[in-house]
Amino acid sequence: MNSFYYYNPTELVFGKDSLSKMKSYFPKNIKKILLHYGKDSIKRSGLHDEVIEILKSNNIEVVELSGVTPNPKLSLVKEGIRICRDEDIDFILAVGGGSVIDSAKAIAAGVYYEGNVWELFTQNVELKEALPIGVILTLPATGSESSSATVINNEETLQKLGLESDLLRPKFAILNPELTLTLPNNQTFAGVVDILSHVMERYFTNTTDVELTDNLCEGAMRAVIANAYKLLENPNDYAARAEIMLSGTIAHSGILGLGREEDWASHRIGHEITALYGVTHGATLSMIFPAWMKYIYKENIKRFTRFSKFVFNVHDDEKTEEEIALLGIEKFEEFLKDIHMPIRLKEENILYDDFNTMAEKCTSSGFVGRFVKLSKEDVIKIFEMAK
Amino acid sequence: MNSFYYYNPTELVFGKDSLSKMKSYFPKNIKKILLHYGKDSIKRSGLHDEVIEILKSNNIEVVELSGVTPNPKLSLVKEGIRICRDEDIDFILAVGGGSVIDSAKAIAAGVYYEGNVWELFTQNVELKEALPIGVILTLPATGSESSSATVINNEETLQKLGLESDLLRPKFAILNPELTLTLPNNQTFAGVVDILSHVMERYFTNTTDVELTDNLCEGAMRAVIANAYKLLENPNDYAARAEIMLSGTIAHSGILGLGREEDWASHRIGHEITALYGVTHGATLSMIFPAWMKYIYKENIKRFTRFSKFVFNVHDDEKTEEEIALLGIEKFEEFLKDIHMPIRLKEENILYDDFNTMAEKCTSSGFVGRFVKLSKEDVIKIFEMAK
Repeated sequence: MNSFYYYNPTELVFGKDSLSKMKSYFPKNIKKILLHYGKDSIKRSGLHDEVIEILKSNNIEVVELSGVTPNPKLSLVKEGIRICRDEDIDFILAVGGGSVIDSAKAIAAGVYYEGNVWELFTQNVELKEALPIGVILTLPATGSESSSATVINNEETLQKLGLESDLLRPKFAILNPELTLTLPNNQTFAGVVDILSHVMERYFTNTTDVELTDNLCEGAMRAVIANAYKLLENPNDYAARAEIMLSGTIAHSGILGLGREEDWASHRIGHEITALYGVTHGATLSMIFPAWMKYIYKENIKRFTRFSKFVFNVHDDEKTEEEIALLGIEKFEEFLKDIHMPIRLKEENILYDDFNTMAEKCTSSGFVGRFVKLSKEDVIKIFEMAK
Repeated sequence: MNSFYYYNPTELVFGKDSLSKMKSYFPKNIKKILLHYGKDSIKRSGLHDEVIEILKSNNIEVVELSGVTPNPKLSLVKEGIRICRDEDIDFILAVGGGSVIDSAKAIAAGVYYEGNVWELFTQNVELKEALPIGVILTLPATGSESSSATVINNEETLQKLGLESDLLRPKFAILNPELTLTLPNNQTFAGVVDILSHVMERYFTNTTDVELTDNLCEGAMRAVIANAYKLLENPNDYAARAEIMLSGTIAHSGILGLGREEDWASHRIGHEITALYGVTHGATLSMIFPAWMKYIYKENIKRFTRFSKFVFNVHDDEKTEEEIALLGIEKFEEFLKDIHMPIRLKEENILYDDFNTMAEKCTSSGFVGRFVKLSKEDVIKIFEMAK
């Protein structure tokens, strides 16, 4: 196990009645907040009115900034920063999924930063201060509701990059699974893949003597998969929605990666697909992760046999370790197919001609991944295996 | 899954080099701390000098209060409160195991409380303020280094009672597994039982649809057991010490109980044995938990078959559910015997004559336990099964 530092002060307020308790979790003396969200869906569902009502009854003034898109854009972040400065905003409330939260985090980070906020993503500038944010989660996926990270799309440079700081962990997260009952299947399952992949990026490691977190990762993956099948059967299953929502938070809270070197190659590669094609994050992962596995599994077959055994229950004494490893990858692909996620790039019309460009951008600052370090040529081969 | 609120802001600083990083984690403007510890062992090991050196080089004035005993005493807590008030202490640094941390927490809680600090344990007084505390952990067991709880012994009334508040979660915990390499086996394994039992108190629940936390609990228990056997083989195994230390923190951090009704009967019953006989906490649990299981397993056989299957790997299609449940309990007892922990009350000379008194005190404010509610008569029967 490696040395580590871990700090996660996000208050998790979970359950059907969580929204009504929200007022208790605002920092004292909050006067004016930025209410940040995406489209009108929170207005149609009545959630917008409910939130406004709670804020007003607590004498909190509200400035609204909507329009966050999937793969949140730098331009809107800059607008948010300007509003926060002009209006003396002292708290940002993000209502939505990972894109809204990430956009809110980037705004929070940029408000006190004198330079161009994008420098925080491209240069090694240490974040010194950020506005506090709160979250009402409507889509379990990114785990951004308690994570230290944000990922933003720069639409001018076609870059999708991340920024990490414990200052970006939300003050509170309102987690009401009921809000997710009406999610369409494609969003639900793209979220499921994102959650699973947050565990897998931590699980695939060369760090030894991490039995505890290995077990926790495997247990989390099994729970996500089991509950995804329940939602495939019945999207109105509150209990399964609750399990997926909590799994999403735990998967990216940091707990499952304690003392482990983490990989993150598949995320980095997937980001390039999104930056160029705008494909949903979860869909990029469901296309890249199986190909990544097939490309690199030989580097650490034991890790993959463990994955097969303890996540997909593959037990067969007559098979070789390599066969067991490959069976696990196959079962993972079957699961992705079962939940109707794309597993080949052609399903999302990703063109062969762009493989080189995406691999080039992905590796522009060196190798990606830590479980196996990947060069530009490796990334191209992964694209080819996924095509 | 039940609704829940969860907040755990303790900074975990883990690894061989964690102590040298401690100075970064004190709140700003700390001028004078209470250094709280037990016996002279931290002086003999050189840890005391190291800590003093770090504090002095950071211009932090130190007042010392040693003498914490296992099952920490109210009288010392009161002395600590007096010192903190007289000396204008603004932070308490606990160096030791759960007893020292719990004593520090009780002092921290009492400093701002105008009445007798014991009222916080006996009456439903809400804690409004507490001194911040930091921890250097030397014995993994209670999880108190990031938990919200403290348990104190009142030597006048022979009561052992707990107090819980998020205000009592330490600001930071320095977790250096090297400090535990020299622990004697009896302390190591009493700690192991305490860690396991913190998971079990959460695992044995009637709350349904908690697949995620069920899996996390089972994974944690398997890791603790596997690493306990490694330490039995080789007490100098750093990697196993690290796994046990992290398991201890995770086991009682609250994560494993999210959304679950928890039990805690075995802890309550064990506390009575300690209050009367001074027996080590872990030893009371290793005597009571198996008896508790045998007494109540029929109330929810499915939970116990799950325990057998996923913690002790009992798989036998030819056995009935009840037989599988009983095999798991048997294997748990075998494990306790293997690590040389007592499993019968006579091993610690607990007298039959005291069963009634202990059961009476334990249930003085009503039933204990939630998985199964136990009356005084039930508790006596559990003592009889353990005798």
